[in-house]
Amino acid sequence: MQSIEIELKSIIQLSQKVLISLGVGYNDAQLVVDSIIDAEMRGVESHGLMRLKPYVERIKKELVNTNPSIEVVKDRESIIVVDGDHGLGQVIADKTLDLCIDRLQTRSTIIAAVRNSNHFGTCGYYSRKAALKGYLAIVASNAGPTMAPWGGTTPLLGTNPIAVSFPVHDFDDFTLDMATSATAKGKIRTYESKSENIPIGWAIDEDGHDTTDPSSALGGTVLPLGAHKGYGLSMVVDVLCAGLSSASLSYEAESMTKSNRIANVGHFFMFVKISDLLSLDSFGKRMRDWFDGLKKSELRPGFKEILVPGEIENKKAKLNQEKININKKTYYELRELASNLGVI
Amino acid sequence: MQSIEIELKSIIQLSQKVLISLGVGYNDAQLVVDSIIDAEMRGVESHGLMRLKPYVERIKKELVNTNPSIEVVKDRESIIVVDGDHGLGQVIADKTLDLCIDRLQTRSTIIAAVRNSNHFGTCGYYSRKAALKGYLAIVASNAGPTMAPWGGTTPLLGTNPIAVSFPVHDFDDFTLDMATSATAKGKIRTYESKSENIPIGWAIDEDGHDTTDPSSALGGTVLPLGAHKGYGLSMVVDVLCAGLSSASLSYEAESMTKSNRIANVGHFFMFVKISDLLSLDSFGKRMRDWFDGLKKSELRPGFKEILVPGEIENKKAKLNQEKININKKTYYELRELASNLGVI
Repeated sequence: MQSIEIELKSIIQLSQKVLISLGVGYNDAQLVVDSIIDAEMRGVESHGLMRLKPYVERIKKELVNTNPSIEVVKDRESIIVVDGDHGLGQVIADKTLDLCIDRLQTRSTIIAAVRNSNHFGTCGYYSRKAALKGYLAIVASNAGPTMAPWGGTTPLLGTNPIAVSFPVHDFDDFTLDMATSATAKGKIRTYESKSENIPIGWAIDEDGHDTTDPSSALGGTVLPLGAHKGYGLSMVVDVLCAGLSSASLSYEAESMTKSNRIANVGHFFMFVKISDLLSLDSFGKRMRDWFDGLKKSELRPGFKEILVPGEIENKKAKLNQEKININKKTYYELRELASNLGVI
Repeated sequence: MQSIEIELKSIIQLSQKVLISLGVGYNDAQLVVDSIIDAEMRGVESHGLMRLKPYVERIKKELVNTNPSIEVVKDRESIIVVDGDHGLGQVIADKTLDLCIDRLQTRSTIIAAVRNSNHFGTCGYYSRKAALKGYLAIVASNAGPTMAPWGGTTPLLGTNPIAVSFPVHDFDDFTLDMATSATAKGKIRTYESKSENIPIGWAIDEDGHDTTDPSSALGGTVLPLGAHKGYGLSMVVDVLCAGLSSASLSYEAESMTKSNRIANVGHFFMFVKISDLLSLDSFGKRMRDWFDGLKKSELRPGFKEILVPGEIENKKAKLNQEKININKKTYYELRELASNLGVI
């Protein structure tokens, strides 16, 4: 991989400056960059620094509001609808997370459906935060159309990711964070930037044929996870994020890499206060015993160990506390962006 | 397929008699048989009549309580924990559904975690019922171990299915009902009973090698849906069903085809009262427009139309209102069961 080692502190400062130069407040810029850097640190390059450029594009075109009034527009106690006023997705999602955690002081579950938002980074960023506070969390987001319904070639569904996290005793959190497509479009872009082929089953070209060429795939559509099942799951995420909140369904939205109109992305959050059902300690220990049990499985030929969801990412994050390897193309793109904005 | 056409009424009566002869109450027998026949009518043979035999085995061994006291053991308003007292899964699930729908008269969301239950048929049977009453429903169940963690060969996870349903205007409900494994073990049994090969990717043999032979697959473990993602989803279902309720996690349970000990299966239910967020009519119409939009997708070579989850099953159910084709082996097994119990 064509990568370059950079001090974490310097890349964070540079990214924050880029956003601040466009009118994003300091705290908001800090939050957005934290979500992007968190993804880079965990090896989720597709949701890392390469996202900054499209964010900047959308802010410049005033499709993203840098000073939003985020409001609870419907309050039904156990479920709220939040209007993000077209702010940066991370700002809206973090505020929603705070609202929900605040409610969990006095109640056992809370659901939030969010509309008028934008791309918010990874779902796992928020679900993990909640897990570390002792909650079981489900976080999902819809996205502009990049995937066809099963059997079709017209992109009408998003990669519509979903994450689930919960706390585990003496172990990092469990975080399953996955696109409901076979892959994320950003991951195909990573392959393209490395000039590598993608596996069969990830995407089809514009005529509906299987392809291993990332450029053909980006001109076509990604395939759903596990065929018709991923198609169904993507629809479920769409209805949870947009059907309940009145955000745009994927087929009404545009891809976040384009910037022609307001996104109106929708999100879905659900939290369960575990300690209202059983002691958090016994829950966490039971989960830990379970993981230990799963790790004792006999291995298939070619596998070295059983991992639980989020484990690799947590290990990577620990290795990248000071310095981090950034894809060269992405890094120079960021430098160019910063230079054009006059912040370096 | 070796099948035989039977009048629906006669197969229902025969199945009910089998259960009643073992001490199951009339209403409960009606409910269990309704869930089984519903699966047959929808073409979900794996959850149809072939399940009756293992139910009978477990009742005979007193591992299933035919007269359970189903109770809410924890009540946190927006989340309840239900103890099924080892009754038939369908009886417990339907009672839980009633409890939840009752709560939805005065609130917008409700979650139920259920323990000390048994196999309850398809998840979609319950989620669809709720959708037809105007709710968005998520229903999941864990199950005994038949699937290995990703990279392993030891069955420590269940096929752990999940269903999501919601109402649609002038269209049958949307119901995604799927195992988090690449396939359900019952489906492999269907292939075995038809002496057909299964596709690669469904299961591995006991040494961890891919197999197309249903018998080797049944001696091995099924693979998760979409590799590591289905593994993660299966764990999520396990924690929702058993982690929250203190039911057995899949790795602590035994497969429902065995009958050596109490199952303590767990379920998870979540409902959202759509009409508390927006008009049910406008929600339903928006969903219908969306389906129409998806159906307009260009088709891939080899596909004839775009279907939405549950559409095929609903169409089949309408064709099977009077008579139904039952797998011959399953039918004669049921006759033998009935004869041994002295009800024919």
